[in-house]
Amino acid sequence: MKCFVMRKVGEVAVLDKRVPEPGPNEAVVRTTSAMLCSSDVHTVRGAIPVASDVTLGHEAVGTIHALGSAVEGLAEGERVAVGGVTPCFRCEFCQRGLSSQCGGRMMGGARFTVQRDGNLAEYFLVNDAQANLAPIPEALSDHQALYATDMLSTGFVAAEHAELDFGQTVAVFAQGAVGLSATIGCRLRGAGFVIAVESRPERQELARHFGADVIVDHTRCDPVEHILELTDGQGVDAAIEALGTPGTWEATFRVTKPGGRISNVGYHGEVPEPLKIPLEPFGYGMSDKHVHGGLNRGGRERLRRIFRLMEQGRVDPTPMTTHAFGFDEVERAFRMMEAGADGIIKPLIHFGG
Amino acid sequence: MKCFVMRKVGEVAVLDKRVPEPGPNEAVVRTTSAMLCSSDVHTVRGAIPVASDVTLGHEAVGTIHALGSAVEGLAEGERVAVGGVTPCFRCEFCQRGLSSQCGGRMMGGARFTVQRDGNLAEYFLVNDAQANLAPIPEALSDHQALYATDMLSTGFVAAEHAELDFGQTVAVFAQGAVGLSATIGCRLRGAGFVIAVESRPERQELARHFGADVIVDHTRCDPVEHILELTDGQGVDAAIEALGTPGTWEATFRVTKPGGRISNVGYHGEVPEPLKIPLEPFGYGMSDKHVHGGLNRGGRERLRRIFRLMEQGRVDPTPMTTHAFGFDEVERAFRMMEAGADGIIKPLIHFGG
Amino acid sequence: MKCFVMRKVGEVAVLDKRVPEPGPNEAVVRTTSAMLCSSDVHTVRGAIPVASDVTLGHEAVGTIHALGSAVEGLAEGERVAVGGVTPCFRCEFCQRGLSSQCGGRMMGGARFTVQRDGNLAEYFLVNDAQANLAPIPEALSDHQALYATDMLSTGFVAAEHAELDFGQTVAVFAQGAVGLSATIGCRLRGAGFVIAVESRPERQELARHFGADVIVDHTRCDPVEHILELTDGQGVDAAIEALGTPGTWEATFRVTKPGGRISNVGYHGEVPEPLKIPLEPFGYGMSDKHVHGGLNRGGRERLRRIFRLMEQGRVDPTPMTTHAFGFDEVERAFRMMEAGADGIIKPLIHFGG
Amino acid sequence: MKCFVMRKVGEVAVLDKRVPEPGPNEAVVRTTSAMLCSSDVHTVRGAIPVASDVTLGHEAVGTIHALGSAVEGLAEGERVAVGGVTPCFRCEFCQRGLSSQCGGRMMGGARFTVQRDGNLAEYFLVNDAQANLAPIPEALSDHQALYATDMLSTGFVAAEHAELDFGQTVAVFAQGAVGLSATIGCRLRGAGFVIAVESRPERQELARHFGADVIVDHTRCDPVEHILELTDGQGVDAAIEALGTPGTWEATFRVTKPGGRISNVGYHGEVPEPLKIPLEPFGYGMSDKHVHGGLNRGGRERLRRIFRLMEQGRVDPTPMTTHAFGFDEVERAFRMMEAGADGIIKPLIHFGG
Repeated sequence: MKCFVMRKVGEVAVLDKRVPEPGPNEAVVRTTSAMLCSSDVHTVRGAIPVASDVTLGHEAVGTIHALGSAVEGLAEGERVAVGGVTPCFRCEFCQRGLSSQCGGRMMGGARFTVQRDGNLAEYFLVNDAQANLAPIPEALSDHQALYATDMLSTGFVAAEHAELDFGQTVAVFAQGAVGLSATIGCRLRGAGFVIAVESRPERQELARHFGADVIVDHTRCDPVEHILELTDGQGVDAAIEALGTPGTWEATFRVTKPGGRISNVGYHGEVPEPLKIPLEPFGYGMSDKHVHGGLNRGGRERLRRIFRLMEQGRVDPTPMTTHAFGFDEVERAFRMMEAGADGIIKPLIHFGG
Repeated sequence: MKCFVMRKVGEVAVLDKRVPEPGPNEAVVRTTSAMLCSSDVHTVRGAIPVASDVTLGHEAVGTIHALGSAVEGLAEGERVAVGGVTPCFRCEFCQRGLSSQCGGRMMGGARFTVQRDGNLAEYFLVNDAQANLAPIPEALSDHQALYATDMLSTGFVAAEHAELDFGQTVAVFAQGAVGLSATIGCRLRGAGFVIAVESRPERQELARHFGADVIVDHTRCDPVEHILELTDGQGVDAAIEALGTPGTWEATFRVTKPGGRISNVGYHGEVPEPLKIPLEPFGYGMSDKHVHGGLNRGGRERLRRIFRLMEQGRVDPTPMTTHAFGFDEVERAFRMMEAGADGIIKPLIHFGG
Repeated sequence: MKCFVMRKVGEVAVLDKRVPEPGPNEAVVRTTSAMLCSSDVHTVRGAIPVASDVTLGHEAVGTIHALGSAVEGLAEGERVAVGGVTPCFRCEFCQRGLSSQCGGRMMGGARFTVQRDGNLAEYFLVNDAQANLAPIPEALSDHQALYATDMLSTGFVAAEHAELDFGQTVAVFAQGAVGLSATIGCRLRGAGFVIAVESRPERQELARHFGADVIVDHTRCDPVEHILELTDGQGVDAAIEALGTPGTWEATFRVTKPGGRISNVGYHGEVPEPLKIPLEPFGYGMSDKHVHGGLNRGGRERLRRIFRLMEQGRVDPTPMTTHAFGFDEVERAFRMMEAGADGIIKPLIHFGG
Repeated sequence: MKCFVMRKVGEVAVLDKRVPEPGPNEAVVRTTSAMLCSSDVHTVRGAIPVASDVTLGHEAVGTIHALGSAVEGLAEGERVAVGGVTPCFRCEFCQRGLSSQCGGRMMGGARFTVQRDGNLAEYFLVNDAQANLAPIPEALSDHQALYATDMLSTGFVAAEHAELDFGQTVAVFAQGAVGLSATIGCRLRGAGFVIAVESRPERQELARHFGADVIVDHTRCDPVEHILELTDGQGVDAAIEALGTPGTWEATFRVTKPGGRISNVGYHGEVPEPLKIPLEPFGYGMSDKHVHGGLNRGGRERLRRIFRLMEQGRVDPTPMTTHAFGFDEVERAFRMMEAGADGIIKPLIHFGG
């Protein structure tokens, strides 16, 4: 089967590998469509150490090709989605609800690419299949279901950690696919005022489409000052970091009220320096601000709740998809993602057949 | 009346001031005893900007001298304690439970010394007296009640933000009066393993007395390595920073498990540099660690719950009191606190009469 | 001034009373508009013991007529709303966030009518004015602001106690003004599937307008069976009781999943018998179901968040207003509410001048 | 192998059965010791429908006899405990943390006896062994470890649902083994005043030993009145029902403050009538009281936290063990439990060899 792999830092290729076989609790899925993620770009840049020739990708849907002997309640041929994070759900961390940190390993729930082959491949293996595979409702397209695997799930984590009450205010830094999903999440949680920080016009437009009340263009103003102005000098109840840069990270502290929440879903692996918390906006440690750095939690239960929101028409994330490719064009798609070319946000990858 | 004031950075004195008169919601308390706090030392060093000749102190008990016209349910002559933090309990921040950040001002609940005269004085004013004065139960000494005003309340905040479940593990960095109180708090919340980091023998002994299971002396080993060893390489569920130095702050990230909590009650005002979060132990922003920087919350309700714990014999914090002085010796007591002389932890200040 | 009072059980009238004068922490508001509530009807039926000739009403907006000497940050003439519940925000219950149960008195935050004169009067007194009066933003009509005082605030309490996660399922029993507001609240919190139980066509239509996905008409089917069918036999994650009858109360247990939440905002004062929990759907006490019986919490902070949702166009509750009257017609309006005549849901009462 | 079974309602026996064989995710444990539980008595009385000749018991420890092919991290011969509740930890309910209600079946985590053979047998089967077996630390005796499987875990659930803050007050109704464990749990969570309701002198003494501050003997006074007196007429912050009778259930509502929590762990299967909530103490549905009916949650992570509390000397539950028997005397032990003879609380059952 064909797989899109990272040969070494900076180098990708399509290679042939054997179709995997499932262990007792595993499943093998035949991929029907997938998406590239900015994490794939980070990985190829060397931000995360991975095995050589590892298959990239962690956002895919397909049909069940083979099921392990101990997997119940699923059938071969069934159309399924699988989370970008696939925890075991049995270890002590999972038992505490910390499935993102499965096994007590930092980001341990992230298996695809990080711990074994990802799913930008014609077939892929799913560990703990009963807990991680979610049948896709008939009413949803593969395209929609793909968004549940990572983008919406991660954006919703961001909104959950923002701990918004009815009518509270929130600023979301950056409106890439995760930031846009966080904007959707904040609206779904009843935020009363959503400020999106973004400079690219096409992303600004999407942010408005998905529910941002105001767009702050950080290339045209000091975003911290502007957010304080927009909130009568008080700051926001919560700020979400969905980019992973020192500047946006520090800004989240400057724009939040005392007692506010800083919810981070940006990956800070590219600048090899400690994250800095500015002293005064953190009240010298006594501002009662909370900081939470989160990751997608995975699991069928979460997938099904996100599916329901799409089924009932609460959200349709597909306008984030800016491009579509066949799997034979995956390398080109990847290079566009890498370059941020042509306003690309999310490329959809179709698998033949 | 005599007041112990800060004349300017580095300079203290005893001055005469007029006995204050209460507004409609206020009260004036005649002080019977008080304690010095390391925050008084920080303040005189210039860590917090204050008015010149402001009275120091925020830990005091006494009897009600005068009550404002709108204060109900209290009587002149009643023996009362008042929190080191005295929120209004009416503003929008207080209405949300963020009384420490009263008025939306960073640490806004802290009024004594920071916003107006403190209570190292023969008489002192209490804002919003009905919400902030707590009658002291007969069974408690003034000495015990003093600990409820700040040390226990702040140490318990530290333990609350550590969000401990039954039997979880916690490391408490530094065993000064707040750190010792955090150790007490962690034990009261059902921690299964409490590691105290401290080098001074008399504080180590107190830590053991108050329930630490193991003492880590950071002058004799790498405390991070040692804590990881003590927890089978896993780290602790929560770490408490009760000192306010860059080194202890960073260590809290290195000793916590993925998904762990960092609870800060140390004041980071002495080193004028951003706080640094080491990248790898923070999972590059994705470790699901929570950070919470807290402050005493004040209020009668909290005081009364702490009183009850002392009344029922759950805790007696008075062994932390290493020295006692008359109010006429307050400057000497302050200089000993400043110098950390003679193993001083908490000095008790008696007021005559 | 003219006041709409309850003379005795079953008897109402318009009486003249003196305009009240504010104490130090109080304010007097000149009423511009108000609404009748089904609680007024309950009260006149004798469900709650009240003083004779007490003024009815607890949903009103107006302009500040007089301010107590200790009230800050507000000005005479300012257009304000005041919650149907007006806690002191200073007592120990308020300090714990239990403002609905102010003073430790059951439903103690409910002062209007229950503890003193209500606000169906040309002027009315507001206790603890600084905490309870919220200036109305220019963008909002009096009519909209009125909904923040009780209906939306109570409906949102119902949704808060339903503790909904993204995409969860909820059934709301009865679509009167509180039930409709609960439906709005559930949608704002990201419910994935909202089932409204209601038989009257005009209320069904409003339920759909405000976001219910499915209407169950309990006069045409067994609502428990139907809700179980709609949820693949599993039941809903949460059920809201917004009526106050034994039948709907018991149904909430029958339609919830194990681990589900029962959120009650119905007033069960009319049938003088204990509430019954059916054994099997409660798992004989071991189903991990939560039950929470709630009340509006009041306070400026909450009012302002609800205002923000209306300002930003998230919700416009005014379609619930089915009728409008001048204050001189208030008795007629009351009798219509009492009789449920002409499909009345909420009547708006205009005050002259 | 010999098994202690329920032949039909009211009838028990020791029968021979085949030693089970583990499926891929299962394990078989050779029992070394076990305890009888009052639930076994309830079951034999017919409170729960079970298969005929089902093996009784759900509190046992032993050594691993055989491991399924997919179980990792455990070894044959290892000394292990297994929770009285053994969830799958993979289903959607377990993924939400509702492991007690595994599979969405009411009390679905309870498998022993209810869904298949229990563990009052020489060998027993454990589903999902990796998640449910916890190696017993060397420092703990089998006797101590047994208490983690059900009594302490359930008593701690009761305390968790009481949601106690530092220094709050709680009443625990009945001091059988679960009630005593709840008392332990409340003390471990920092309760400031623990009232135990119990009439039998030997249980009263144990309650005091485990940390109750006051004992209320309901045979000598009206316990509701007495608890109100003990709390200055206010009532307690939380009440725990650890018996399962209509009278104690109703009393929990009468003794709690507005906003209080009712935490139920009593099994209400013996009186076939709805549970009744008295109207006035529930504020006619508006008291902001929470009710939570809970069940042991099971799982290795929880077992290990309870082990740690015993290892560090926080608690030693073994004084609850009033009697010891060999497995050949199990029927006699059961009949004593049934009759409540000789002050029996928990009987320890030793297995030979």
